[in-house]
Amino acid sequence: MSDKIYSYQQLYAFALNVFLKMGCSNEDASLATSVLLSADLRGIDSHGIARLIGYVRLWEVGRINATPNIHIVHETPSTAVLDGDKGLGLVVAPKAMQIAIEKAKNVGTGWVSVKNSNHFGIAGYHAMMALSQDMIGMAMTNATALVAPTYAAEKMLGTNPIAMAVPAGNEAPFVADFATTTAANGKLEIAQRNNQSIPTGWAQDAKGNASNNAHILKEGGALLPLGSEKELGSHKGYALGSMVDIFSGVLSGASFGPWAPPFPAYVPMPENMPGEGLGHFLGAMRIDAFRPANDFKNNMDLWLKRFRNAKPINGQERVYVAGDLERIMEGERMLNGIPLVKDVVKDLTQLAEKFALVF
Amino acid sequence: MSDKIYSYQQLYAFALNVFLKMGCSNEDASLATSVLLSADLRGIDSHGIARLIGYVRLWEVGRINATPNIHIVHETPSTAVLDGDKGLGLVVAPKAMQIAIEKAKNVGTGWVSVKNSNHFGIAGYHAMMALSQDMIGMAMTNATALVAPTYAAEKMLGTNPIAMAVPAGNEAPFVADFATTTAANGKLEIAQRNNQSIPTGWAQDAKGNASNNAHILKEGGALLPLGSEKELGSHKGYALGSMVDIFSGVLSGASFGPWAPPFPAYVPMPENMPGEGLGHFLGAMRIDAFRPANDFKNNMDLWLKRFRNAKPINGQERVYVAGDLERIMEGERMLNGIPLVKDVVKDLTQLAEKFALVF
Repeated sequence: MSDKIYSYQQLYAFALNVFLKMGCSNEDASLATSVLLSADLRGIDSHGIARLIGYVRLWEVGRINATPNIHIVHETPSTAVLDGDKGLGLVVAPKAMQIAIEKAKNVGTGWVSVKNSNHFGIAGYHAMMALSQDMIGMAMTNATALVAPTYAAEKMLGTNPIAMAVPAGNEAPFVADFATTTAANGKLEIAQRNNQSIPTGWAQDAKGNASNNAHILKEGGALLPLGSEKELGSHKGYALGSMVDIFSGVLSGASFGPWAPPFPAYVPMPENMPGEGLGHFLGAMRIDAFRPANDFKNNMDLWLKRFRNAKPINGQERVYVAGDLERIMEGERMLNGIPLVKDVVKDLTQLAEKFALVF
Repeated sequence: MSDKIYSYQQLYAFALNVFLKMGCSNEDASLATSVLLSADLRGIDSHGIARLIGYVRLWEVGRINATPNIHIVHETPSTAVLDGDKGLGLVVAPKAMQIAIEKAKNVGTGWVSVKNSNHFGIAGYHAMMALSQDMIGMAMTNATALVAPTYAAEKMLGTNPIAMAVPAGNEAPFVADFATTTAANGKLEIAQRNNQSIPTGWAQDAKGNASNNAHILKEGGALLPLGSEKELGSHKGYALGSMVDIFSGVLSGASFGPWAPPFPAYVPMPENMPGEGLGHFLGAMRIDAFRPANDFKNNMDLWLKRFRNAKPINGQERVYVAGDLERIMEGERMLNGIPLVKDVVKDLTQLAEKFALVF
């Protein structure tokens, strides 16, 4: 690979300056940068600094508000609906998670559904905010429709990720963060760049036949829900993606399903949108609202050790727990830097020129 | 098929009498029967009256307590841990769900983690209890380890189902209820009875190779998480099954992972169990804790209509929403009766003899 390597600090300084040039406050720009770059550190390259230019373009066409008035629309002791005022999801979501955490401190759990927001980076960042509070964290979001329900020949749902972070004692925590599709769209983008075909089960063509073409979404095709096909349980992945859409979109008053707003700024907004912007759903559960935190952590350590030491199948060295690979990557990239592909370097250079910054 | 057909009323009366003979109170016997038979009505035959003899055998060896003292161990305004006192999960789970619903009435949401319980029938029943309260309901449970994590050659997790019920206005509600595996164990049992092979992706052999043998679990094989293999996202199904295990088992103080108690009474209990019995997790969220119930229902109706009217792929007549097929089956079986296979009829005849009942 001829990827160029950048230090975390280099990329942080650059992204921070871009958000400041957009007019974000110092506080919001720092937060947005931390969330954005957590994706690069954890190896989820499609959701990191590669998307920075996309956020800028949405801001240029007025779909992102750099100085939003983020406010609670309605609340109860354990719930709230938050209006993101078209802010960066990178800023709106952690603020929503903070509200969920405060509610969990008071009444055991907190659940915040968010409307009128934008792409929030990796779901895992927001869920992991709960860990230091001895809480379980959850985060999900709806997204541009790219996924066909089981038996459907239309794009109806986003890749609608779910993240869940569970604290432990001495062991590294459990951190799941995954799209509710067989493969995330970022994996198709990698195959497109490398002129590769994609495995059967990731996507279908416009008529619903299996496709190995990484470009098939541009020809009326769609990503497939986790499970790939009915016989292998795709109706379950479809149900999961639906749940995320309902919790994030319908419960908050955001738009949903095929009417979710698109990420690319050149794609027109859907007609007759039933709600405002993208939706998220954030949750926090205090461990000691259920049992003493130390008892839970001891059992969680046992759980994690038992799974990490499970007998591997032939050809594999070990069994991983959700989040292990991302944590290893984070340590490695913090130390050795973050590789960026040529197209991303080009985008960032273009941004540097636009804002008179150095990259 | 040479299945015999029984009316819902016939099976209800018989199961009720069996639970009464076990010593359940009238109230508990009615509740257990309603939960059990909801599976037969909805077409989830593996979880209905076919399991009645299994519950009786667990009661005979002292693993099920017919007169449990079900009690709250710890609670906050939005949470509780419930000790099922080895009661029938069919009774413990709906009582836990009722507590979740009461908490949701008070503070917006309610979340109850349950320990020291047994198999709770179909998850969907408990989640659907929320619908008439204008709440979203959730239910999950851990179970006997039959599933290998991605890259593992051991059975470490149960089929750990998740159910979620969402109320609507004029449209029929959204009711997801699915095992977090590619295929539920009941599907393997059907293939075993019919001497059929199973599709690639459902199970692996003792070394972790794909297997089409419906009997492979008896030879050291395992069911596979939703996604089937790493390339098709099995680590996501594994993460989902893990979440269910952690919420149901670790959070409550029940047993978990490979130490979850087995359903067959002849299988010895695992050694060094880290907790008490099986665990469940039940949740209720009041719709109007987020937005006015009518606004939500109007949007939910739009969501449901749009998905039910999505363009189908070649060869399919229509697109379904989670719960549609089960609801159609329920109407059909309430009207025309419930078919039982020969082996189940034999088991029930044996139970009738044991308890001097008529079947």
